[in-house]
Amino acid sequence: MSITRGRGVTISDVAAAAGVSRAAVSKVIRNAYGVSPAMRRRVEAAIEELGYRPSVAARALRGSSYRLGLEIPYVSARFMSQIVEGANRAVAGTPYQLVLAPADGPEYSTLESLADGLVDGIIAVSPRVDPPWLEELARRVPMVMLGRHDDPVAYDTVVGDDEAGAGAVMDHLLALGHRRIAHLTEPEAVTLATPVTPHVVRVAVYRSRMAAAGLAPIIEVARWEDGDSGVREATARLLSLPDPPTAIFAGHDDIALIVLAGVAAAGRLGEVSVAGYDNTDMAQHPLIDLTSVDQQGAEMGARAATMLLERLQGRTERRQHVVATSLRVRGSTRPPLS
Amino acid sequence: MSITRGRGVTISDVAAAAGVSRAAVSKVIRNAYGVSPAMRRRVEAAIEELGYRPSVAARALRGSSYRLGLEIPYVSARFMSQIVEGANRAVAGTPYQLVLAPADGPEYSTLESLADGLVDGIIAVSPRVDPPWLEELARRVPMVMLGRHDDPVAYDTVVGDDEAGAGAVMDHLLALGHRRIAHLTEPEAVTLATPVTPHVVRVAVYRSRMAAAGLAPIIEVARWEDGDSGVREATARLLSLPDPPTAIFAGHDDIALIVLAGVAAAGRLGEVSVAGYDNTDMAQHPLIDLTSVDQQGAEMGARAATMLLERLQGRTERRQHVVATSLRVRGSTRPPLS
Repeated sequence: MSITRGRGVTISDVAAAAGVSRAAVSKVIRNAYGVSPAMRRRVEAAIEELGYRPSVAARALRGSSYRLGLEIPYVSARFMSQIVEGANRAVAGTPYQLVLAPADGPEYSTLESLADGLVDGIIAVSPRVDPPWLEELARRVPMVMLGRHDDPVAYDTVVGDDEAGAGAVMDHLLALGHRRIAHLTEPEAVTLATPVTPHVVRVAVYRSRMAAAGLAPIIEVARWEDGDSGVREATARLLSLPDPPTAIFAGHDDIALIVLAGVAAAGRLGEVSVAGYDNTDMAQHPLIDLTSVDQQGAEMGARAATMLLERLQGRTERRQHVVATSLRVRGSTRPPLS
Repeated sequence: MSITRGRGVTISDVAAAAGVSRAAVSKVIRNAYGVSPAMRRRVEAAIEELGYRPSVAARALRGSSYRLGLEIPYVSARFMSQIVEGANRAVAGTPYQLVLAPADGPEYSTLESLADGLVDGIIAVSPRVDPPWLEELARRVPMVMLGRHDDPVAYDTVVGDDEAGAGAVMDHLLALGHRRIAHLTEPEAVTLATPVTPHVVRVAVYRSRMAAAGLAPIIEVARWEDGDSGVREATARLLSLPDPPTAIFAGHDDIALIVLAGVAAAGRLGEVSVAGYDNTDMAQHPLIDLTSVDQQGAEMGARAATMLLERLQGRTERRQHVVATSLRVRGSTRPPLS
C-alpha cells in the first residue's frame, strides 16, 4: 500500500488495509458493541500502521464536526436518560458522537450555541421556544424535535401517543371505580407559552374522559410550580380538599414520585391511588411500584437520532413519527376504599 | 456611540452601552439567576440596538469556543445529575456553556473528541483511561478530574472523602450489631484497569474495618457486573449463601436500589440491611428510605467547574480538592434480627 502515514489517512484506507468495511472500522474506533476480538485486532493494527487519527481524518473527509447535539431541558429528569440511552445506541457504530447541551433557562441560547458550529444536527427535547424561531433554526441546521406536538415545515418530530397514553390511565382509574380523580400538570404559564407540549394533550384527555364519565363538575386540575417544593405544595393542597381525590394522575413519573412521597407522609398510601407517565426505572422499582405509561423513551431517542442521520444523508422532506404507548399497571393504583 | 452594528460588537460594547458590567451582560445572555428586571431591560435594549450576537462576538473576542465539556460515563447514573446541576450552576453567569459528552464505551474517543476543538476545558468524571494518557491530554486542554484519586501533574482533581464516607457506613453497621456484612463493588477488571476509583478506596476501608472488628475471616466482597442483571445475580448469590449477610454495603446508590429490590423480592426487607453511597434523590424518597453517604455531588460539580474556569483564567499549578462526606442514616439499616 502506498498510503502516507498520518494526516491524509481516511477511514476507507484503514478499512482497506484491514480488509473490513468502513462501518466495522467506525465500530472499533467508537468502541461500539458487536466487534469480534479478531476484527478489533485487525483494525487496530491497521490504525497503528497507517497512523490514522479518526477525528482529524473524519473532518478532512467531509468538513463535518461528526457531532450530533441533544438539547435537554432537565438533566435530572429520569425520562431523559432513556432518551439519551436510545440516541447513544443509534449513534454507536456511526462516525458520529453525541453531545448533550443542558439548558439552565429558556433554551434559545443553548440551541443557538449548538447550531453555531458545534454540531452537524440537533435533537431538541421539547424546548420552550417559539415554533417560528425553530423553523428558522432548522433551516440552518438539520433538526428533530422530540416530545412536542408541533406541525413543522423544516424539521422532523418524534412524539409519544399522548392521546392513547393519557386515555389508558383515565380508563384504568375509572374502571377501578374512581370518580374524584385529580390531574397534576405543568404550570399554566408553560402551557400558554408553549401550547404543544405532551402535557397539553394529557390534560385535554383528562378533561374529556372526566366529562364523558359525567364527572365534569368535579374536574380538578392542579398545577405544579417549578421545583420539588411546588409539587409538594400542590399535593398537600389536593389532599386537604374537603372532598379530596381518591386518585391523582400526575403528568409524569418524577412528579408522581413526589406525589407518592406526599401521600405517604400524610399516611394515606393505599387510600389515594397515584399514576404517572414515562415508565421510568423508578416507577418499576418494587418499593415504588408506580402505575405508569411506557412511551418507550429509548425508542424515541433512537428514532430521533436515526431520523437526524437520515437528514444528514440528504433527506429534506419532513417526517413525523408517533411512538406507541402502553399502560403498566402496578400497586400504586387500586380501587377506592369506599 | 460609534459602534458598528453586528459582527464586530463585543460584550464590552454592550456593557458600556447598557452602563453595566460585562458579568451582568453575560448573566442576561445566559438567562442566569440574579438579574433584576430593570437590568435585563437595559441590557436587552443595548443588545438589540447594537445587533450583538453573543456566540460570534465571544469567539471574535478571545478565539475561544466558550464551552466547557463534561465527560460522563453513565448518563443514567443518578449521581451524575447532581454533578451536572452543580457544574451548570457554577457556569451560569459566565460566558461559558456546558456541554456533556456521554461515553458509550471506554472514554478515550469521547475525551479526544471533546479536546479536538469542541471545548476550552474538560471535566472528566472518573474515566477508565490511563493516567499517562490523561496527563498528555491535560497538556493540550485544561482539565479537572472528578471522582478519581489520581496524583496528577497537569490537571486538577475533585474527589469525595471516600475514606471517611465508607468508614462511616461500616462504623454505623458495626455499631448496629452486624457482623456478617458484605460489600458489593465494581468488577475486578475495572479495579485492575483503573486502580484509582472511589470504589477501590471504599472496598479497602470495608476490608480494614472488618479486620479491625475481628471479622477478617468473614469478609465477603461481591462484584457487580455491568448491567442491572449482573447486580441482581450478585444480590441473589449473597442472599443464598449458607450464612447470608445481615447487611449489604453497596458501592453506590444505583446498585443499592437494585439490591433493595432483590431483598424485597426475596421477602427479606427489614431482615437484611442495605446501605448505599451518594445520597441520591431516590435514596431520600420515603418509600426507598436508603441509608447513604452524602458526598455533595452538586458541590463537587460546582467546584470542578470553578477550578476549570480558574485554569482558563491562567492558573497552571495543580489543585486537589476533597469534598467532605456525611452519613445519612435511614430506615434501610437497622439492627440484625437475631
